[in-house]
Amino acid sequence: MRKIKCIGILTSGGDAPGMNAAIRAVTRSGICNGFKIKGIYKGYEGLINDEVRTFTTENVSNIIQTGGTILRTARSKEFMTLSGRKKAYETLVKESIDALVVIGGNGSLTGAKDFAEEYDFPCIGLPGTIDNDLYGTDNTIGYDTTLNTITQCIDKIRDTATSHERIFFVEVMGRDAGFLAQNSAIAAGAEAAIIPEDSTGSDQLIEFMERGIRKSKKSCIVIVSESPKCGALYYANRVNQEYPEFDVRVSILGHLQRGGSPTARDRILASEVGYGAIQALVQGQRNVMVGVRNNEIVYVPFVDAIGKRKNIDKQLIKVLDELSI
Amino acid sequence: MRKIKCIGILTSGGDAPGMNAAIRAVTRSGICNGFKIKGIYKGYEGLINDEVRTFTTENVSNIIQTGGTILRTARSKEFMTLSGRKKAYETLVKESIDALVVIGGNGSLTGAKDFAEEYDFPCIGLPGTIDNDLYGTDNTIGYDTTLNTITQCIDKIRDTATSHERIFFVEVMGRDAGFLAQNSAIAAGAEAAIIPEDSTGSDQLIEFMERGIRKSKKSCIVIVSESPKCGALYYANRVNQEYPEFDVRVSILGHLQRGGSPTARDRILASEVGYGAIQALVQGQRNVMVGVRNNEIVYVPFVDAIGKRKNIDKQLIKVLDELSI
Amino acid sequence: MRKIKCIGILTSGGDAPGMNAAIRAVTRSGICNGFKIKGIYKGYEGLINDEVRTFTTENVSNIIQTGGTILRTARSKEFMTLSGRKKAYETLVKESIDALVVIGGNGSLTGAKDFAEEYDFPCIGLPGTIDNDLYGTDNTIGYDTTLNTITQCIDKIRDTATSHERIFFVEVMGRDAGFLAQNSAIAAGAEAAIIPEDSTGSDQLIEFMERGIRKSKKSCIVIVSESPKCGALYYANRVNQEYPEFDVRVSILGHLQRGGSPTARDRILASEVGYGAIQALVQGQRNVMVGVRNNEIVYVPFVDAIGKRKNIDKQLIKVLDELSI
Amino acid sequence: MRKIKCIGILTSGGDAPGMNAAIRAVTRSGICNGFKIKGIYKGYEGLINDEVRTFTTENVSNIIQTGGTILRTARSKEFMTLSGRKKAYETLVKESIDALVVIGGNGSLTGAKDFAEEYDFPCIGLPGTIDNDLYGTDNTIGYDTTLNTITQCIDKIRDTATSHERIFFVEVMGRDAGFLAQNSAIAAGAEAAIIPEDSTGSDQLIEFMERGIRKSKKSCIVIVSESPKCGALYYANRVNQEYPEFDVRVSILGHLQRGGSPTARDRILASEVGYGAIQALVQGQRNVMVGVRNNEIVYVPFVDAIGKRKNIDKQLIKVLDELSI
Repeated sequence: MRKIKCIGILTSGGDAPGMNAAIRAVTRSGICNGFKIKGIYKGYEGLINDEVRTFTTENVSNIIQTGGTILRTARSKEFMTLSGRKKAYETLVKESIDALVVIGGNGSLTGAKDFAEEYDFPCIGLPGTIDNDLYGTDNTIGYDTTLNTITQCIDKIRDTATSHERIFFVEVMGRDAGFLAQNSAIAAGAEAAIIPEDSTGSDQLIEFMERGIRKSKKSCIVIVSESPKCGALYYANRVNQEYPEFDVRVSILGHLQRGGSPTARDRILASEVGYGAIQALVQGQRNVMVGVRNNEIVYVPFVDAIGKRKNIDKQLIKVLDELSI
Repeated sequence: MRKIKCIGILTSGGDAPGMNAAIRAVTRSGICNGFKIKGIYKGYEGLINDEVRTFTTENVSNIIQTGGTILRTARSKEFMTLSGRKKAYETLVKESIDALVVIGGNGSLTGAKDFAEEYDFPCIGLPGTIDNDLYGTDNTIGYDTTLNTITQCIDKIRDTATSHERIFFVEVMGRDAGFLAQNSAIAAGAEAAIIPEDSTGSDQLIEFMERGIRKSKKSCIVIVSESPKCGALYYANRVNQEYPEFDVRVSILGHLQRGGSPTARDRILASEVGYGAIQALVQGQRNVMVGVRNNEIVYVPFVDAIGKRKNIDKQLIKVLDELSI
Repeated sequence: MRKIKCIGILTSGGDAPGMNAAIRAVTRSGICNGFKIKGIYKGYEGLINDEVRTFTTENVSNIIQTGGTILRTARSKEFMTLSGRKKAYETLVKESIDALVVIGGNGSLTGAKDFAEEYDFPCIGLPGTIDNDLYGTDNTIGYDTTLNTITQCIDKIRDTATSHERIFFVEVMGRDAGFLAQNSAIAAGAEAAIIPEDSTGSDQLIEFMERGIRKSKKSCIVIVSESPKCGALYYANRVNQEYPEFDVRVSILGHLQRGGSPTARDRILASEVGYGAIQALVQGQRNVMVGVRNNEIVYVPFVDAIGKRKNIDKQLIKVLDELSI
Repeated sequence: MRKIKCIGILTSGGDAPGMNAAIRAVTRSGICNGFKIKGIYKGYEGLINDEVRTFTTENVSNIIQTGGTILRTARSKEFMTLSGRKKAYETLVKESIDALVVIGGNGSLTGAKDFAEEYDFPCIGLPGTIDNDLYGTDNTIGYDTTLNTITQCIDKIRDTATSHERIFFVEVMGRDAGFLAQNSAIAAGAEAAIIPEDSTGSDQLIEFMERGIRKSKKSCIVIVSESPKCGALYYANRVNQEYPEFDVRVSILGHLQRGGSPTARDRILASEVGYGAIQALVQGQRNVMVGVRNNEIVYVPFVDAIGKRKNIDKQLIKVLDELSI
């Protein structure tokens, strides 16, 4: 294995709060350990097109508290092709980059895995996604911030729901995972959560509505995980038809869930895994995602991180159920 | 004119942050000046149905910082009828209420005006609406909070817009008035605002897009006032068709704009006009809306407050135009 | 063991954000499982003086998002005496309370332990303290909120530190534990943290200052754990004397660290342990603190929770060190 | 008068949120109107030492939402001397700067006035101070943000004050002006404000305490304007001595009051006066401060802006008095 002197870093896929903190951590910890650091712009797209710049500690000053990513990000179709990855490899050779740190979610780490295998190139992944759907790490970078953003939005919506005695269906992000929906429902004191992990969701809704009516709760908030077919609008329409006496509203929180200054926890997680990425390379690790589990830095093989399913804690469903009475 | 001993207070129409601060101010200032205060629940609906409770200073403790309205609110169809207003009057007689303070927007103050004329009953209005569309007061209760909420949401969306180099159309509330859209666009550093007051909006959009392309700005945020026909989706679709090379997204902020802890300014405004409502009654005023203009408490006849049009400052359009280059 | 029918709940010691969420969770989960719930006001003081009220689910409506504690809290000297605890016991008998849930920190749980042993009375503790210094649970209720509050305060102070090129010593809470100082330093991108766990702190400061000067960083923020003798003022004075060329300022964050709306995580933790407290009683547990470790609800014997030392993760010290270059 | 081609801009004195929005507005509006813009770093200090850089629109991208000042700031003793101002003038000549825009408070604008007179040099001032103590403008840049920051801090402190039934003396900034103290007291629902404009403050305190005791309010918050002799500690000590039965605490908010992302209003004000500064120069104005009064941009001669006293609205004192019962 060639000695690593220069490390490239990029962010890929949907942006997540804390990505900048991770860029800062990788850069500073890398420099601290004697590496040269190069920032690659616009994800794999910039790797293909050689949009690369050498980073000093100053490049990452005063960014730990900012949302988004100073490296920009993109979803690259070209990198999914053999010829795209070939161009990417040529950039790495040209730029004398010996290892790659990729910050992103499932799709981005899958790209890193494929590339690492094809070119036998050392890649380290950092879990950067608001969805929290990567296996092997307790949390992903951005999840805690988005969870708080959603919770604060629901706090605001509850002001109106209570004042007007309405039923609100609030749609939140999460792709195929219900972490954001389930946990924001508990945190915001919502009455129910409809999540992809629980296929009985819609029946539960009817049961819940009936139970709610019996107890004459007058306002109510239901959190719904985004879904192409069964989003908040779908459920609102159903309730509208079956319970026309209710004043039903929909709120789709949308893109504001991705942004904002990261929470303390996301910044700390990003700092730890950024530091861990450099440690991993120093220790000869490659093709792993760096996570934090039980407060310890862990290295998770790419194949597990993206291949295994991270489950919702069933107990949380019970907690929400009891506390929403 | 009968001597006023007991004052009823209600909130009506859409809820607005700061309504609780106004309820607190009317209650405490009223008690301080020797009046009895009665809270009427659910707006005119509760007036018709006699949902009334005597208020002490404790009833309004620790609410100045809360969103929504502890009195609940509603849009009452029955109060728009003669028989509805008759029932309302009977409640006032039964409850020995001699004057009414109504906190709400255009529709609610119209209701107060009609009722005051019909029954020769002393009514005072307080401007409670996030839309800022009441004439005679510099600001309405709730406007400043919503303006800040929108601005913070756009700050978050900009993180994503910049990271992904996208064009965002963000739809904000305001009914027929562009105050929220125009001012949040300036505050958030958006590239343009499309407001109902400016009928050339959509042509400007094309001109703006072309200008933007020439200068190769890569991300861009356009704020759009809500509108049944020409909302954010409409403009996004147009740009999608004419500039398919752009990555266009839509965010409809929705109901979260109404809630949240009021800003300092909304709390102070609510405190001033609540105090002013009692002063107005002490001074024999009736059928006026209490506002604050040039830092002074003013009494605006209902007919002006709801009938005259409050204009957007044209200079702000010029300011946005120059600063978004 | 007598069958438990009625559960008393109190908050004790310093208030912490999330205590209300815990009160809500115990109350609702308790009622859901068939118990009667009684709220005891002002901590052990109210137990001694019989300030008790029966709670329904409505008593805890709309409090999950609020700071402080609706049950009030106090530090009771009388409860530290035999006669005080005797009076407390008499209240429990009089009120037919069969078990006690105490939400508080080290001192409060010590009181619960003593009382439980003396009167063979079932007590369950919930970890409610911003200091995070209870053994056996990953986090305590309030810690995450305070960590974020501090981080946001430092974000603000950094604006001024950078604009004026100053050195700031920021003093934060934490009693004998450095969790808040160490983690907020990482989260806020501070240059150093002085914590009680690390006795070499002050020498490190000098070394750090010299290193900083060499690298000509012009502004710098040092987080200092509160301490009777060696707080932020002490260090500021030392630097003032040894490096008179620097513009040194002190900020003692003080009581605002305790308040505010709890974060999502504190609300979820409070909900889980509140639910867990009822489960514990159902399962016949007594004299344990309910915590969450590795995402699982755990029961920690009082003697461990208050007697064992929870250590700062040494790795975090290394992370801060590398990232502050 | 020489034709103005190049405009220099600097921030001076204490930093205030919104200064960056003002820098952005001057730069963009300046470029839009055909001027060259140069940023001068570290206030008058940088003017003396020729720390100057040409600004494009990109230099001020993405700063409208940030606290502090990207131009840095300082209080310059040298600029108070004739020789200092001579050096400053030489820099302006060397850099071909034809006019100067100074963003700062009373001291900074006094410096601008002296310099403008001595060298017959066109200077425009922008009101940048959290204290709101400049005559001729309704608000100064930074005031609204700081007012909200303080209000939110008091909201948090109230959680603890209520939970523990304590009396809090909270010290806030404002120099010789009580705007921040008086208005934050109203906004936060505090029980009293002690401000420099009201010399009877301390007697009022005793009267207030007695009144409060009679009414048996158990917790209470008093806002105190910063003062070398009679700050929060002074009053806390007095109450401690005269009412030893109370649990009295002090919180000095300190430097965090200066930082943070500016509110919508501060950003809009900064944008308007920044735009107004360029308009002023285009129209041949000089040696004026640009303010906004009654929603209109106004030009205030330096001598008035810094020489006349801006008074607290007496009505606000009455409002606080009635609402704190």
